[in-house]
Formats: sequence, structure tokens, C-alpha cells
Amino acid sequence: MQVKSTNRSHGGTQGVYTHASTSTGTEMEFSVFVPDHAEGEKLPVVFYLSGLTCTQANVTEKGEFRAACAELGLIFVAPDTSPRGEGVPDDPDGAYDFGLGAGFYVNATEAPFTQHYRMRDYIEKELPALIGAQFPADMERISIMGHSMGGHGALTIALRNPDRYKAVSAFAPIVSPLNCPWGEKALTGYIGADKSTWRQYDACALIEGGARVPDILVDQGSADNFLEGQLKPEFLTQVCEKSGQPLTLRMQEGYDHSYYFISTFMRDHLEWHAIRMKS
Amino acid sequence: MQVKSTNRSHGGTQGVYTHASTSTGTEMEFSVFVPDHAEGEKLPVVFYLSGLTCTQANVTEKGEFRAACAELGLIFVAPDTSPRGEGVPDDPDGAYDFGLGAGFYVNATEAPFTQHYRMRDYIEKELPALIGAQFPADMERISIMGHSMGGHGALTIALRNPDRYKAVSAFAPIVSPLNCPWGEKALTGYIGADKSTWRQYDACALIEGGARVPDILVDQGSADNFLEGQLKPEFLTQVCEKSGQPLTLRMQEGYDHSYYFISTFMRDHLEWHAIRMKS
Repeated sequence: MQVKSTNRSHGGTQGVYTHASTSTGTEMEFSVFVPDHAEGEKLPVVFYLSGLTCTQANVTEKGEFRAACAELGLIFVAPDTSPRGEGVPDDPDGAYDFGLGAGFYVNATEAPFTQHYRMRDYIEKELPALIGAQFPADMERISIMGHSMGGHGALTIALRNPDRYKAVSAFAPIVSPLNCPWGEKALTGYIGADKSTWRQYDACALIEGGARVPDILVDQGSADNFLEGQLKPEFLTQVCEKSGQPLTLRMQEGYDHSYYFISTFMRDHLEWHAIRMKS
Repeated sequence: MQVKSTNRSHGGTQGVYTHASTSTGTEMEFSVFVPDHAEGEKLPVVFYLSGLTCTQANVTEKGEFRAACAELGLIFVAPDTSPRGEGVPDDPDGAYDFGLGAGFYVNATEAPFTQHYRMRDYIEKELPALIGAQFPADMERISIMGHSMGGHGALTIALRNPDRYKAVSAFAPIVSPLNCPWGEKALTGYIGADKSTWRQYDACALIEGGARVPDILVDQGSADNFLEGQLKPEFLTQVCEKSGQPLTLRMQEGYDHSYYFISTFMRDHLEWHAIRMKS
């Protein structure tokens, strides 16, 4: 692991790091905020998955998470959204919603994406192992959250690993790739046309199939441009009601899809995570 | 005034606006955060002046001021750091510390800068009039703060207008352009070689000459790359001690010159301003 930068901030250290990932076969960049802590103390860890087009930098610069993480004693980890670099295939038309910046947190099974697009393995296995080895992290107390495509990532990863993540929440998540254009395009491209294989990457399908977590927190802006066409939180509400999966879905009047929205409710989410990682 | 964007954030509205400035003869962009408030209520206003290379966007995206401004009921205004656009002269070598992004909050008297580089008039007169006319602002309760070059701007503007600004504070300010390379270059270029005319743009010289404000808050990171070569807060400490000008200068161990530093202490500064604008 190489240190790209460290800055003192809010009574802790905000770092940006790179490492050679065995999952993606590329150099991957991520950021980690570590609050000041007693020597030998190990802190719980929140993983934050970003949305389409983002790198670690968006939430690191605009997420306004550091003050709350310092108060609550949380390490905050923000990975990239896809493999990048020479030889990594992109969308043939350079579209923003597939390829670079749009890994969708899956392990691709379709050529030419299989070699590098293994973001599921990266987020579920490789990155937690690295964080546990390199930072003062208590890997028995980890949780996951995300925004938009990263909300999809957080929900599906938590639902597939309910014993591992102590809490899960999302800002404006894609709740059902099976039922939106972003999901149709990405999963067809990475996983192929057989939609039965998509269900492991669809929060609603996972819940319908019996996956459960203790509870889910979702904030969704009412003025989000992607609300009706892509995000469709009503799918999540319906399947949770039908299945008995606890869900707190808060519609936030007038808020959009941007970090102006995310930063507003970041503290609420971190408090939600901290409470569930204390127990 | 044209609206470039508005986003709901932290229980208020973050807007970005442009207008044709009569001071600079250019289109100027600025951002304004207005907390939710009762109909007809007028709120106190904090002006934030940015540092070298910045536009309004740096603090707007990374400043972490909105939560505190919403709680404290403060309007937050962030202007640009220089005129920009076709016909606006820049540093002949394109350096970062003169010309575009480096207006130093002066009225230039040297060719070819006299026509557009009138940031003093813009910040002291034109922008406050615009804010008073277009926003729910109580222009009897205004204050000013800034970072680096903007800290220089805030200090000098407040010291020249002690009856007008109810509070002043700065992050890592240039405290004496007469005594640092940035100041030497900028004031020679904009104002000319006669250093007696610089004193109106030098916080230390203004205090030495008798200018007073009720108090000054300064935060300075100890790991700031520009601390010894450019910022030299000891000049301010010395002149304040000698002159009886109240100063709270806080050295912040390990903090640098970045928004990771500024955002950490932004809430402290806004609380300082709010208290002084309530009375």
C-alpha cells in the first residue's frame, strides 16, 4: 500500500492510498479517515460506496463525514467505483453509466470485462482484509453505506453478508437493477442476458428470496432527477412490507441527487451505524 | 443577477449566481447559502473571501459551513477571487499568484490592471449592495472572514471599515503583504513600487497606523507549507501586542493550508461571528 496524501482534519487523519489489487488486476485508490484514538485501540469501520462517475474523491471532499466520524470514533473508508488504467475496457461509446466509474459492485462474467471488473470481490474481500491489516480497525465491527449505484452496492453486499455487516444504509440507492435502465445496461454488459443470475445483485430480489438484515436506513430526495426513471424506492418499500424486512425510508422534500443532499444527512447515517456497531 | 444553480442543503438553499459587475467590468460569479427562515425575516451575513487560485466553488463544495450556518441563522456569501473573462489581463507567465485567481482584494492603479482589477470596490461596495437587494439579508449585521489571500482581504477590509463589519476572522491569512513574496509581487504589479500606498492593504500596517477592530480570530496550522515563507503570523502577533489590538491567534498542531484545515475550524469561526452579530 502506498500513501498518496495525508491531511490532518477534524481531529483525525484523512489519507488517500493506492495498492495493487489482486481482484481487479489494477492499481486501486481509496481514502481512509482515522479519528485520533488511544494507542492500541481498534475502531469500527464504515465502508462508503460511491455512485456513477465518482472516485473516492467526491465523498472525501464533499461528504462532510469527518466531524461526525471523529465524534463517534468511526473509521471511514471510500473506495473507487471501478478498475481504471491501461488495458481496462470502458463503455464502447464512453458513456458515464458503464465501464470506468461504473463497476456496479459485481464480478463480471462477460468478455471483455471478466479480467478487471471484479468489484464485488474487491469490496467484500480484498479491501476489508487490507484495511484490517493496515489500519487500527476492528473488523468485527464493520458496516456499509453508499450513494446511488453505491447504495445498490451497499444494500446487496449487506444482504448477502448479514452476519458480517452490523449496519447498512443508503442515499438515493438503485434498489432494483432488474427494474431500471442503468441496471439493465450494466448487468447485461457485465453478467449477461440471463436475468436469473442478476438476482444476487438486486436488493429487492435478494429480499424477495429471503435475505434479511436487522434494518435498513434509506434517505431519498424528492427533487432527485433520477427518482422516477431509475431509483424507484417504491420497489424497495413494497418488497420490504411484503417480506417483513424492516426499512426506514425517509423522503427528503426538495433534496436532489447531489452531495448537497448527501452531506446534509451524512451525520444521521453515521449515528445510525455507530449505534449498531457499539452493541 | 442570474441564477446558475440552486440546491437544497442542510435545511437551506445553496445557490450560485452571476451578475455583470460595474466594479470589474466583467461577469462575476458568487455563491450564497440562505438558511430557511420566517417570511420577512432578515438574516446576518458572513462574507467569505477565498485564497489564491480559488473560485467560489472551493469553499462552497469543501468548506463545511452549511450545517453551522443553518443552525446559527447566517447567510454565507462566497465571491470569486479576481475578475475573469475575455480581455482580463493575467500574469504574463501565467503564474498562480498574480492575475486571474489572485486579485488580492485591491483596486489596481497600474496598467494594464486598472480597468478590471477592482476587487476592493467589488467586495466593499458592489457585492454587499447586491446581496442586500436580492437576498433576505440584514445589512446592518455583516461580518467578514477569509483564507490566506482572502484572510488578508478580510482583515484589511474590516480594519478599514470597523463600524461596518461586526466581526472578522481568518484562516492562515497573509498578514503583511509588505513582508512576504506573494505580497511584494502582487502589490508591485497592481499598485506600483511606492510602498507607502501599500499600507492600506497591509493588516499589520493598518493596525500600526491606528486602525482597530474589537477583536480578531485567526487559526493557523503548524504544518502549513506557507507558514514561514509567506504567512508569518508573528508579524500580526507583534503589532497587535504593541498596539493593544485584541487578537486570538490559535496555532493548530499538524494542520496544513488546505480545506481539510479550514473545514475543521469553520464552525468555531461561524459561532464567533454569530455571537458578535447578535449583539
